[in-house]
Amino acid sequence: MALVKFVEYAEASAEVKAVYDDIMATRKVNWINNFWKALASDPPTLKRTWESLKQVMAPGALNALTKEMIYVAVSVTNNCEYCINSHTAAARKAGMSDAMLAELLAVVGMANETNRLANGYQVEVDERIAKAARQA
Amino acid sequence: MALVKFVEYAEASAEVKAVYDDIMATRKVNWINNFWKALASDPPTLKRTWESLKQVMAPGALNALTKEMIYVAVSVTNNCEYCINSHTAAARKAGMSDAMLAELLAVVGMANETNRLANGYQVEVDERIAKAARQA
Amino acid sequence: MALVKFVEYAEASAEVKAVYDDIMATRKVNWINNFWKALASDPPTLKRTWESLKQVMAPGALNALTKEMIYVAVSVTNNCEYCINSHTAAARKAGMSDAMLAELLAVVGMANETNRLANGYQVEVDERIAKAARQA
Amino acid sequence: MALVKFVEYAEASAEVKAVYDDIMATRKVNWINNFWKALASDPPTLKRTWESLKQVMAPGALNALTKEMIYVAVSVTNNCEYCINSHTAAARKAGMSDAMLAELLAVVGMANETNRLANGYQVEVDERIAKAARQA
Amino acid sequence: MALVKFVEYAEASAEVKAVYDDIMATRKVNWINNFWKALASDPPTLKRTWESLKQVMAPGALNALTKEMIYVAVSVTNNCEYCINSHTAAARKAGMSDAMLAELLAVVGMANETNRLANGYQVEVDERIAKAARQA
Amino acid sequence: MALVKFVEYAEASAEVKAVYDDIMATRKVNWINNFWKALASDPPTLKRTWESLKQVMAPGALNALTKEMIYVAVSVTNNCEYCINSHTAAARKAGMSDAMLAELLAVVGMANETNRLANGYQVEVDERIAKAARQA
Repeated sequence: MALVKFVEYAEASAEVKAVYDDIMATRKVNWINNFWKALASDPPTLKRTWESLKQVMAPGALNALTKEMIYVAVSVTNNCEYCINSHTAAARKAGMSDAMLAELLAVVGMANETNRLANGYQVEVDERIAKAARQA
Repeated sequence: MALVKFVEYAEASAEVKAVYDDIMATRKVNWINNFWKALASDPPTLKRTWESLKQVMAPGALNALTKEMIYVAVSVTNNCEYCINSHTAAARKAGMSDAMLAELLAVVGMANETNRLANGYQVEVDERIAKAARQA
Repeated sequence: MALVKFVEYAEASAEVKAVYDDIMATRKVNWINNFWKALASDPPTLKRTWESLKQVMAPGALNALTKEMIYVAVSVTNNCEYCINSHTAAARKAGMSDAMLAELLAVVGMANETNRLANGYQVEVDERIAKAARQA
Repeated sequence: MALVKFVEYAEASAEVKAVYDDIMATRKVNWINNFWKALASDPPTLKRTWESLKQVMAPGALNALTKEMIYVAVSVTNNCEYCINSHTAAARKAGMSDAMLAELLAVVGMANETNRLANGYQVEVDERIAKAARQA
Repeated sequence: MALVKFVEYAEASAEVKAVYDDIMATRKVNWINNFWKALASDPPTLKRTWESLKQVMAPGALNALTKEMIYVAVSVTNNCEYCINSHTAAARKAGMSDAMLAELLAVVGMANETNRLANGYQVEVDERIAKAARQA
Repeated sequence: MALVKFVEYAEASAEVKAVYDDIMATRKVNWINNFWKALASDPPTLKRTWESLKQVMAPGALNALTKEMIYVAVSVTNNCEYCINSHTAAARKAGMSDAMLAELLAVVGMANETNRLANGYQVEVDERIAKAARQA
């Protein structure tokens, strides 16, 4: 049980219902998952978070699948069980195969390892790498 | 200055030189960056880490660009300055545009935010999300 | 089940009982929660941790409620389920309303997001911000 | 130098200028700090992040000072140098004394310690704590 | 249930069986734990991870017990429940007493605390400490 | 420059001087490093932190070198530059060779990798591992 009571559609205010409707329409689903039902305990947070997420996750320079996999990478690094589950599900729906999941997690593991080797040895950034990382 | 002395090519053992040669050949560059020069202070770590990285980052079910962006996502989440720089440089080389970098960082920021909202409200995973996240 | 056996009051040594008594007296409760029962497997850790916590959480320049909310903010960021629960309970007892919890978590989420945007873009600290952050 | 070029006011698009103007008006300052100049390289991220931050940090059930201190607590836990500096500066401006900063950091340190003791001993949440943490 | 199906020995490919056999022979056990059964869904990750772990955890300049305790320290800091359990079990098997576990966790807690005090106060490294930390 | 002014010995209060004297006597050195000079801006934090550290780091079931290496492992995982430097220096003083440092960092890297593989695949703890991790 979450720290707040879930707001179910039937009992929701008009403001919350409008967000729920937009979530379902955007995602082409007919139900609301627990994350939003918890956020709905504070309608401004629900509305702001959904609108931000909708904007950030919309296909643009990166497609939906790539964005979902990046979301999984962060969620695994932070160990958020809810988010690992929900964004793995979303990534699978967007076309992530088992082989892609395996490679995604292998990269996440490797990055977490070399992040600590670089920090642990206190390696300074090479000048030409710093330059290559920056906008021309 | 790193915690260990960098091993330069000219002074390297045959074992280290072999790894350095493979790094340069694989990446089509003619120089070795500081990360490897630090790891070379312990040749087994150099060899193991390079061979793992080479395997993990080779294009497969995911292409090189996607893998580099996932690497950046993890490195930003962990705040590894060296890795943010080196993998942003690698991602740019693999074709990441400024617009793609902006979207990548926007997703990373959003994921870090909702990871804490999900954990903070102690939201339990929906059964159908758990099922959708799992291998059929 | 924890990694060590809980030390119940009835079976505790005089040293552990003295700490338990002080916890109950300070908090005006008549029971000991699992965290302390686990630490009691190592009495010096129990005593040191309790005395530090008691000193740090005592009202001073900041009141008890503010301190408990800061504790929740850290525990959410680190994803410590035990601590999220225990310090949310303590904050509620100290007067945190549902509206305050919602704002607290919104700030925690936002801070986790912009921490990664600042690190991800590798933004350097403005000189006047650095100066304003420092003791006059 | 950040990974992207800073967008200075004089060279900014009308869209970016509108956000910069709102930042300066809201904060009653006449300059823009580096964080926003970096985000301005991607105007939708600038606009969304500023509007979210403005909403989240506005005084409500919690006052501005408490919110800034919570922001510092998260930024210290994540080790974001930019954010530690900018939100410590903002907290001082909102009235945080040296004594308050000292207590804030003491709580942050203590929470980071006990988070690991609770996780390290794998302590399960007490039923009555779980209940007390939840909305009545 | 994990995100992928566990690969049991009886149904494993020759490649996976070879790794399983090596794990059991190296560890002198007659069963495979869940971590490897999950990784076996991607045989190259299984093989690479096992060979790396085997090399890294072999006694060398540090003995097996010290290595297992370092593994626990990292796993507690990151809050990986699986790894806290598996490496505490391995450390106990390698000779870790209850008293050693208590001291290990006390150091982990303390380090997590002072890490934040050092970052929170933005303390710069002393020149002579920097020198003493570096290879002569 | 840190967020607070360093308290130098000559200008310190009797309370702070007593802690400084104990630090120097315990460590057999004749100077105070920046960390303590920053904490001294809040004497109760200085005294509490030093006394806790002194107790936690004293040789007991684990020797001083093992404790310092565990401290480094945590500091690298959290990326605390000050603490990586100061505890690597302390570990070297306590006898850590270059080979030991290399193995320490290799274990830290590996643990950070497998922590994410275990979390990423959402692997559940084996019953017999859970049992073996617990106090008999």
